[in-house]
Amino acid sequence: MTRARDILSAEPLQVHEIEVRVRYPECDPMGVAHHAVFPIWFEIGRTEMLRASGGNYRDLEAAGVFLAVVRLEVRYHSPARYDDVLRLVTELRSWGPVKVEHAYRLYRGDELLAEAGTTLACLDRDGRAGPLPTEMVPGMSRARAVDA
Amino acid sequence: MTRARDILSAEPLQVHEIEVRVRYPECDPMGVAHHAVFPIWFEIGRTEMLRASGGNYRDLEAAGVFLAVVRLEVRYHSPARYDDVLRLVTELRSWGPVKVEHAYRLYRGDELLAEAGTTLACLDRDGRAGPLPTEMVPGMSRARAVDA
Amino acid sequence: MTRARDILSAEPLQVHEIEVRVRYPECDPMGVAHHAVFPIWFEIGRTEMLRASGGNYRDLEAAGVFLAVVRLEVRYHSPARYDDVLRLVTELRSWGPVKVEHAYRLYRGDELLAEAGTTLACLDRDGRAGPLPTEMVPGMSRARAVDA
Amino acid sequence: MTRARDILSAEPLQVHEIEVRVRYPECDPMGVAHHAVFPIWFEIGRTEMLRASGGNYRDLEAAGVFLAVVRLEVRYHSPARYDDVLRLVTELRSWGPVKVEHAYRLYRGDELLAEAGTTLACLDRDGRAGPLPTEMVPGMSRARAVDA
Repeated sequence: MTRARDILSAEPLQVHEIEVRVRYPECDPMGVAHHAVFPIWFEIGRTEMLRASGGNYRDLEAAGVFLAVVRLEVRYHSPARYDDVLRLVTELRSWGPVKVEHAYRLYRGDELLAEAGTTLACLDRDGRAGPLPTEMVPGMSRARAVDA
Repeated sequence: MTRARDILSAEPLQVHEIEVRVRYPECDPMGVAHHAVFPIWFEIGRTEMLRASGGNYRDLEAAGVFLAVVRLEVRYHSPARYDDVLRLVTELRSWGPVKVEHAYRLYRGDELLAEAGTTLACLDRDGRAGPLPTEMVPGMSRARAVDA
Repeated sequence: MTRARDILSAEPLQVHEIEVRVRYPECDPMGVAHHAVFPIWFEIGRTEMLRASGGNYRDLEAAGVFLAVVRLEVRYHSPARYDDVLRLVTELRSWGPVKVEHAYRLYRGDELLAEAGTTLACLDRDGRAGPLPTEMVPGMSRARAVDA
Repeated sequence: MTRARDILSAEPLQVHEIEVRVRYPECDPMGVAHHAVFPIWFEIGRTEMLRASGGNYRDLEAAGVFLAVVRLEVRYHSPARYDDVLRLVTELRSWGPVKVEHAYRLYRGDELLAEAGTTLACLDRDGRAGPLPTEMVPGMSRARAVDA
């Protein structure tokens, strides 16, 4: 059976890194990426981490499994500018029967621009919380295996 | 039976006006509303025209009727700036069994900022073109009645 | 002189309420407002609170004063659906020489959909932290006066 | 001296192709990419075409040259779905002293999803139309050279 993991553990269960280029309409009159764009990048980060593990979020939804964000926390340290190529490090921090925790660090080169965390809840088509079908989330299954 | 109308007719079938305030993240590093935001405002314009007629787009979708944009044309004359309160005039120009044409003029005060046109196709849940249920679109029904 | 306020104080310095209607493109394939849209609404909430106090964020930027979000925290309790008219309560929780704290509660009717908090830093044109020109932020000035 | 080119010419001056993956929040309750997202992809297409030619739009803006969209036309043939990897073909169709025309075709595999055209006007910092500094737009310079 799956069980909750300690989000404060030093070792993430899984780490994945992507690059994302800042789009023009993502930037605001300050000339920098608007703060509401960062959660979109974080979502891409966890989606690509799932894909790299052999899973696919589109298939999850087709199977009636929805991962809804129930918590979002971001610390913005330095602005991201138009056309910057950013490096996003996504970590799977913990997962349990119905919730998944990720952490994110966004860099331009070696400069840390932002840190963030999210909690996802696993929902069915009718919005009811339910168990995560771990067989569809290979990275998590392997993380569990290692941890068991 | 419904029939196609002449989009070039001088008289629109229905006219509706709304105000929309330019949001901060809708503006780009030029300090003006990004051109991809205008279609979002046009969509609000036709949605509110439908509501003012006694219809409701959410109810249409709940009934399995989807209006998909198949044509979009915009001429941008002058920029819209952050926090501007704009005046959007939406016109129903023509409607037929499966297609609806709207025209739009966007103003700041008396200054014309943009002109646009859209064609919507009526689709069912599976994306197949189908007849518009005119009983759910009161403004169009009345327009037809006047025109008949 | 301005001084930092206790963010945990039960009494907010200022409270303002607006309505916001959920736009179609703000909703995702789950049929509900995407989580990255909520911060855009919160920004509108604090902008309108400033306007209601006699200030104007556009004027602040024109004067070289930029308020950048450095912290964002959101708890999502229940989804917001397309075309819902939401009620957003924005509170000014604390303000000091260079930082401002707001809290937000988003409702549909009496149902609490989300709670959030932000910290803004006051920056000059070159992105350097600087003092908030309180004479341009009437609500804050009055809040201080009451508090002094 | 630069001169206007015939937009109807069969041969584009320059062609560039990119891939773009459909993001989750770009999709609406119909489960497909919202029509207002397509112009954002087209902008990325022409930006990347410029980059592939050795130019850079960020540098253009830093030099006080802004390319504003004054015309947008899109025909939507078939929906793009979440997580689809699309293929965008961008063509430079014509360019003259102050205006640039592009055409776009968006595919999923071999299926044509949309066709579009834009006209850009070259503006200075104050929004006045001005000549395009062709030395900063290598692809256009080469296109002209070939064409002369």
